[in-house]
Amino acid sequence: MRNTARWAATLGLTATAVCGPLTGSALAGQDAAPASLYAPSALVLTLAHGDTATMTTPVRAVTLSCSPTASGTHPDAMSACVELRGVGGDFDALRARDGVLCTKQYDPVIVTVDGVWQGKRVSYERTFSNECVKGSYGTSLFAF
Amino acid sequence: MRNTARWAATLGLTATAVCGPLTGSALAGQDAAPASLYAPSALVLTLAHGDTATMTTPVRAVTLSCSPTASGTHPDAMSACVELRGVGGDFDALRARDGVLCTKQYDPVIVTVDGVWQGKRVSYERTFSNECVKGSYGTSLFAF
Repeated sequence: MRNTARWAATLGLTATAVCGPLTGSALAGQDAAPASLYAPSALVLTLAHGDTATMTTPVRAVTLSCSPTASGTHPDAMSACVELRGVGGDFDALRARDGVLCTKQYDPVIVTVDGVWQGKRVSYERTFSNECVKGSYGTSLFAF
Repeated sequence: MRNTARWAATLGLTATAVCGPLTGSALAGQDAAPASLYAPSALVLTLAHGDTATMTTPVRAVTLSCSPTASGTHPDAMSACVELRGVGGDFDALRARDGVLCTKQYDPVIVTVDGVWQGKRVSYERTFSNECVKGSYGTSLFAF
């Protein structure tokens, strides 16, 4: 009898130890997502033809997330994240590569970036005089 | 000889038919990405504590893409896309579920949505009086 009681007590304590934390977290709130170790980074990049974003319809839009791992519908999320980290999230710091020759044809394309980069809100817009000029900036971030 | 000539002509035409479009698309520009069959949809959703988005720092940010398939860092992209399609991309049309009881405590949370939904630019912001109230709207879209 004493052994049975001891076993029952042990089982009870084990059940509390195992299930307690689960119940606790389930009751902690409707927000089940744990606080992230990383400042959030989640971006949407769009491409449109025209002068200003508000006057144009985006022809392409991709998502890019860089933490904890590179992901998104961006065709080369890994390189895009490396490039973005390289300029500290400052899109204006992306410079044109040397040796790229483009015509002066004016057929403007607009790239917009919205969302969050390392916890800071981003709302960026940049107009390039044509696709070739856009392609000359950076290597992969704007190549979507 | 006439047969050989006919074969040569046929092969030539086939080669043109097969390779022509490939060469054409390769030469079409530096943008190698093909035009999508779908209007682009790519969103970033953020969550912050406070009254207005501009005055707050997002504590969470997730990406959500719904075409051609549901993807993103949203914890339940599939359900979120179903929900968003159900209201035709109109975030204001998401209503509070019946039977959810919340306190009147004022501890505001802000949800923002930026990006593109089926080819249209989205810039949305909504303040809920507390987390519980936020959780009562829709089922999965704002649950990140």
